[in-house]
Amino acid sequence: MSGKKQLYVIKIGGNIIDDEYKLTNFLKQFANLSSPRQLAGPDAPEVHKILIHGGGKLATKLAEQMNIPQQMIDGRRITDAETLKIVTMVYAGYINKNIVAQLQANNCNAIGLTGADGNVILAHKRNHPTIDYGFAGDVDTIDTNLLKSILDQQIAVVMAPITHDQKGQLLNTNADTIAQEVANALSTLYDVQLIYSFEKSGVLLDANDDNTVISSINPAYYQQLKSEQKIFAGMIPKLDNAFAALNRGVKKVIIGKAEQLTDLITGKAGTSIVHE
Amino acid sequence: MSGKKQLYVIKIGGNIIDDEYKLTNFLKQFANLSSPRQLAGPDAPEVHKILIHGGGKLATKLAEQMNIPQQMIDGRRITDAETLKIVTMVYAGYINKNIVAQLQANNCNAIGLTGADGNVILAHKRNHPTIDYGFAGDVDTIDTNLLKSILDQQIAVVMAPITHDQKGQLLNTNADTIAQEVANALSTLYDVQLIYSFEKSGVLLDANDDNTVISSINPAYYQQLKSEQKIFAGMIPKLDNAFAALNRGVKKVIIGKAEQLTDLITGKAGTSIVHE
Repeated sequence: MSGKKQLYVIKIGGNIIDDEYKLTNFLKQFANLSSPRQLAGPDAPEVHKILIHGGGKLATKLAEQMNIPQQMIDGRRITDAETLKIVTMVYAGYINKNIVAQLQANNCNAIGLTGADGNVILAHKRNHPTIDYGFAGDVDTIDTNLLKSILDQQIAVVMAPITHDQKGQLLNTNADTIAQEVANALSTLYDVQLIYSFEKSGVLLDANDDNTVISSINPAYYQQLKSEQKIFAGMIPKLDNAFAALNRGVKKVIIGKAEQLTDLITGKAGTSIVHE
Repeated sequence: MSGKKQLYVIKIGGNIIDDEYKLTNFLKQFANLSSPRQLAGPDAPEVHKILIHGGGKLATKLAEQMNIPQQMIDGRRITDAETLKIVTMVYAGYINKNIVAQLQANNCNAIGLTGADGNVILAHKRNHPTIDYGFAGDVDTIDTNLLKSILDQQIAVVMAPITHDQKGQLLNTNADTIAQEVANALSTLYDVQLIYSFEKSGVLLDANDDNTVISSINPAYYQQLKSEQKIFAGMIPKLDNAFAALNRGVKKVIIGKAEQLTDLITGKAGTSIVHE
């Protein structure tokens, strides 16, 4: 034991945001993580937590209502000025504040932030040799001061995937990346577990069978699974990022179903990505 | 001198939000208030500040784009469910985060909040005998803990006029009221000056002549001006609120032009509402 306090950095996927029932269920479990006794007995250490949300289909729907055409390249939205306005409204406004209000209703004090707030995430406009992604941001630095002061007041942080460049420009930023960068930066101050929760039960041996969850993957097993081509291609970037996070100080990465959040944390569900 | 630190609670009107040039100019002045030397010499005490913004015409414009009809009664928007979604997106998302990003660009660390964040403003859905205002919130309590911890880190707070009822419901709330309630609540901890900045130069003897600013109003003079019918009717609720704030602990209330923010604070412009 390092003596550091526990911190859960939990990314929630867009499919969960779009499903009111699943989101409510997830938020109830997230709220209850503030009670360590539920998970680990009365002597358990304080638990701190950060929720990072994506945007789901609401931004696309609003763009349709406003007749603003959306362009996607390789699954990434091209963020022109009108689209940046939409994602700022939907992610930082509607989704972020409704999540905060729901957590408050579940007696979990929470605060919603973007990377511009408290200068928490400094980013720069993506500079790509051939594709103009528009106002898409790549993360430069995380300032942990404000995050720490909020977490230490037992307030959960809810982060929208919007950053800024400190020159007045907001930037649309990948939520998976934000989760990883925030987890890495805070691992100097906390024992961090990084949880990617989405609609699947974990890393699957058979992408079509939710009962084939691999419960634990270490680097040697990952190499073996990759050489046997048993890892679904779409999962490889997530797993590469997970091992990168472990190498940068994160204690454990867990991938699994949002509705099973409590079980993911107690090791009863999902896939744990570990050093050994 | 009370020995308390200085806090400026500054409300900015919707007409300023709608004017990019005026808003930029105002935010530069707001950012520079963090440097007490500029205002009062090298030995000046620390300055803390809160900005409360209204919404301007952007919400109405977005409602038009989305074909959602807007109903106003006595200048107040009737907040049905779709309108609440719009104001949450526009006030808490677009306007709030762009103000924060602009302040960061001016080297003023800032954080954008609604009343749901950190449970800062608890409200209830307005209960009116004859008019259904929809999801309009009337303020119950201000929790000063989070605000104090942020201000004491020399971070400015930017508040959007959205509150919550702690049952998961966000509520659209009048920004003037939020400014007054926040100023009142924090006056136990700080020497608070409450500034209402808008498009006019202050309280005017002749509503059509911006050169007839009354520089100072105390209760006796206010009674005299009212009995002589020299106060523009629209200004009376603002002045009544100002005197109510003074009675609840606020040190000074200033009303004046947003572009003259620095001069309002140094007493070179605007109308000061004072006890004596």
